[in-house]
Amino acid sequence: MYEKEYLMLPGPTPVPPRVLRTLSQPLINHRGPQFKELLEEVTAGVKRIYQTKNDVFIFPSSGTGGLEAAVVNFLSPGDKVLALSIGAFGDRFAKIAQIYGCAVDKVEFAWGTAVDPALVAAKLTADQGREYKAILVTHNETSTGVVNDIQAVSAARGDHPALIMVDAVSGLGVMDLKTDAWGLDVVVTAAQKAFMIPPGLSFVAVSPRAWEAFATATLPKFYWDLGQAKEYYAIGQTLVTPALPQINALRETLKIFAAKSLDQLFARQAYLRDITRAGVKGLGLKLLVPEEIASATVTAVCVPEGINIKQLMQKLREEYNVVLAGGQQKLAAKIFRIGHLGYIQHLDILAVIGALEMSLKELGFPVVLGQGVKAAQEVIMVRKGLL
Amino acid sequence: MYEKEYLMLPGPTPVPPRVLRTLSQPLINHRGPQFKELLEEVTAGVKRIYQTKNDVFIFPSSGTGGLEAAVVNFLSPGDKVLALSIGAFGDRFAKIAQIYGCAVDKVEFAWGTAVDPALVAAKLTADQGREYKAILVTHNETSTGVVNDIQAVSAARGDHPALIMVDAVSGLGVMDLKTDAWGLDVVVTAAQKAFMIPPGLSFVAVSPRAWEAFATATLPKFYWDLGQAKEYYAIGQTLVTPALPQINALRETLKIFAAKSLDQLFARQAYLRDITRAGVKGLGLKLLVPEEIASATVTAVCVPEGINIKQLMQKLREEYNVVLAGGQQKLAAKIFRIGHLGYIQHLDILAVIGALEMSLKELGFPVVLGQGVKAAQEVIMVRKGLL
Repeated sequence: MYEKEYLMLPGPTPVPPRVLRTLSQPLINHRGPQFKELLEEVTAGVKRIYQTKNDVFIFPSSGTGGLEAAVVNFLSPGDKVLALSIGAFGDRFAKIAQIYGCAVDKVEFAWGTAVDPALVAAKLTADQGREYKAILVTHNETSTGVVNDIQAVSAARGDHPALIMVDAVSGLGVMDLKTDAWGLDVVVTAAQKAFMIPPGLSFVAVSPRAWEAFATATLPKFYWDLGQAKEYYAIGQTLVTPALPQINALRETLKIFAAKSLDQLFARQAYLRDITRAGVKGLGLKLLVPEEIASATVTAVCVPEGINIKQLMQKLREEYNVVLAGGQQKLAAKIFRIGHLGYIQHLDILAVIGALEMSLKELGFPVVLGQGVKAAQEVIMVRKGLL
Repeated sequence: MYEKEYLMLPGPTPVPPRVLRTLSQPLINHRGPQFKELLEEVTAGVKRIYQTKNDVFIFPSSGTGGLEAAVVNFLSPGDKVLALSIGAFGDRFAKIAQIYGCAVDKVEFAWGTAVDPALVAAKLTADQGREYKAILVTHNETSTGVVNDIQAVSAARGDHPALIMVDAVSGLGVMDLKTDAWGLDVVVTAAQKAFMIPPGLSFVAVSPRAWEAFATATLPKFYWDLGQAKEYYAIGQTLVTPALPQINALRETLKIFAAKSLDQLFARQAYLRDITRAGVKGLGLKLLVPEEIASATVTAVCVPEGINIKQLMQKLREEYNVVLAGGQQKLAAKIFRIGHLGYIQHLDILAVIGALEMSLKELGFPVVLGQGVKAAQEVIMVRKGLL
C-alpha cells in the first residue's frame, strides 16, 4: 500500500522510525559481555517506568505470558485468589489462575465500570482466615477503556497478606502506577503498549514479599521460572534466548523516555485522551465510560443506532487507511475503540475524527462535517493557551 | 565497534541484510486481513521445511517455549515418558517433563555420542503394558554437536503407541527431518537457527495422533494451549499478540529458501560442516565427535592440553571479533564450539580457522600458520572440481 496507515489500536501501537531502525541491527551473542551491558541498561530504564527498586525480568513472550508467569511463580494448586474483573483482560487473568488449579473467587464488575475498592475491602475483611493468597487486578482494561484505581485497591488490602498482582500490560508508562509506593507485589507489562516497540517482550516486577511466596509456591514452571531467571540475570544473561531486536528497540525507546519526567509522559497521554473524547462527543457519538475512569490509552465509543460496526470499520480501513479496534466479546457489536497511546500525536486524532465523520455521514448517521474535529481542535487550542 | 564481527555461534546466527531490513517494517493490525495473509503464507512455507501436512503453530517465545508447549499439550501428570538425552538440551526437555509431573524414564548417553536406537527398541519392547506415552528426543544436540538418527528412533518405536516428540530447535531445516514420512508426532523448532532470523519465535508441528492425545491430556496450559491456538488460526489470527518483526523476517527468509530444494539446503550445511572439520583437523586440533554423527550446525572442538579456553575465547573475541561458543556444563572447560549455520559461507570459515591458528600460536600451541586454512581450502577446491 502506498497510502499512509493510521494504526489507532489500543496496542500494538505505531513505532517511531528511530526505534524501528534499531530492530535491524545485526545480532550479538546473547551470552556475551555486550548483551550483559544491554540487559542492565534496559532493565534500569524499565525500573524507572515501573517506579520500583524491585527485580524486573524480561521474557520473550506477549503480555499474556507475563500474566502466566505471575500465576505460576507465586501460587500453588488450591490457593484462594481474589480476581477482580472489569472486562476481557480481567477475565483472562482469572482464567489463567483457574486453569492452574487455584480456587478463584472472581468478582465481576459491569463492563464499562471500574473496580469498587470498598467491595475489595469488604471481601478481605470477611476473609478472617486470611485465605486469599493473591488479588488479581487489571490496571487498564483495554476491552472497555477503563482504568482502575490501583492505589485504592492496594489501600483496601490493608494489612491482609494477599499479594497484589497487577496486569499493567496496557497501562504501565501511560498512567501513573507506583509499584513501590503503592506496595504492588507483581506487576506485569509488555512491549507494544507504552514502550511503543513491536510485540515480543513481557516484563514482570517482583517485590520482596512476592519472593517470599515464590519460595513455597508449587505450581510447575520452567519457561516462566523467575528463580532461574534471577540466577541468569545475576550473570547478565536470560534463561532462554532473548528477543534481541525488541530489546534493542527498548533501549531506543527508553532514551526517548529519559528526556521526559514520568509526569510529562502521563500528561501527554491524558492530553491525547482528552482530544479524542472531545472529538467523539463533538461529532455526536456517545462515550462508553465517564471521564473519571477513562483510560489514557484507548477510548471506547458506543456504536450509534442503525450503524453496522463491521461496515464502519471496513470503510475506515479500506477508504481512509484508518485502523480502529472493534469491541470484544459482550461488547462486540456495541462499541468500537480508538487507541491513542505510543507513537500518536494530536493531529493524528484530528485526522481520525475527520475520517469518522465522513464515514458515518456516508453510512447515514447525521453528522455535521467538521464538528467533531472542531471540538478536538478546541482542546488543543486551550492547551496552547489560545482559547 | 567498527570492526566486522564473525558471529559463529550455534544460533542465534547472523541474519542476512535483506532479512534484517524487514524487521523495521511498520506494524500492522494483528487482528486484520493483512496479518491473516501473512500468517497463512509463512505457515505454508514453514510446513515445507517441516516436510509435513500436519498443523504447525507459531509462538512468540524462544525454542524452550516450544518444548514446554510439547509437554503441556499432550501429557498428563504421572504419564510415563521415555526421555533420550545426549547432552544439555536433551536434559532440558526431560527436565520440563519432570517439572510438570511426568514419570520420566531418562536414558542418558555419553556426551559426544548419539542415541542408540537398539536401546530404544529394547525399552519399548520391555514396556509390555504400553505405559510410555511419549518418547522425547533431540534432533541436533547443540551442546555436543551430535545429530541423532531420528528415522531410526522412529523405526525403533515400531507399533508402540508412544508419541515421538522431537526437539528439532537447532536442526530442522539444516539436516533432513521428515516429519510425516518418519511419523513424528510433535516437532519443535525456533527462529534463530536454520531460519536465520532473530530469536523470538518457536514452532510446533502436531500430528493427528498427537491431537488425539491432546483431547485427554490434563496438564494445565493457557499461553501454550494449542487447542486455543488452533481456533485462532482458523480465523487467521494467533491467540496472543504475535512477534510481528520476526514474522516479517520469516517471510523474507522463506523467500530465500523457496529458490532452493530442501536437499540443496541440507547439502550446503553439510558442506560448511566439512570445511570446518577439515580446518580444525588441519591445524592440529581434535574433534569431539566422529563424522557419522557430526552435526551440520555446530562443530565441537576439544581444547588442547595447556590451553585455557576462556583466554582463547577472549582473544578471538577481543582481537579478531570472532565469537565462538564455549562448552556447556560437563564439557565447559573441555570443548569450544564453532557454529556454521544460517547466514554463514565458506570463506567465513577460512577466516575463523585463520584467527584460531593465530590465537593458538600466540597462546603457545604448536601451530603451523595456514595449515588449517589449507585443509579447509582443499574441501572447497574439491567441491569445485579443481582438486
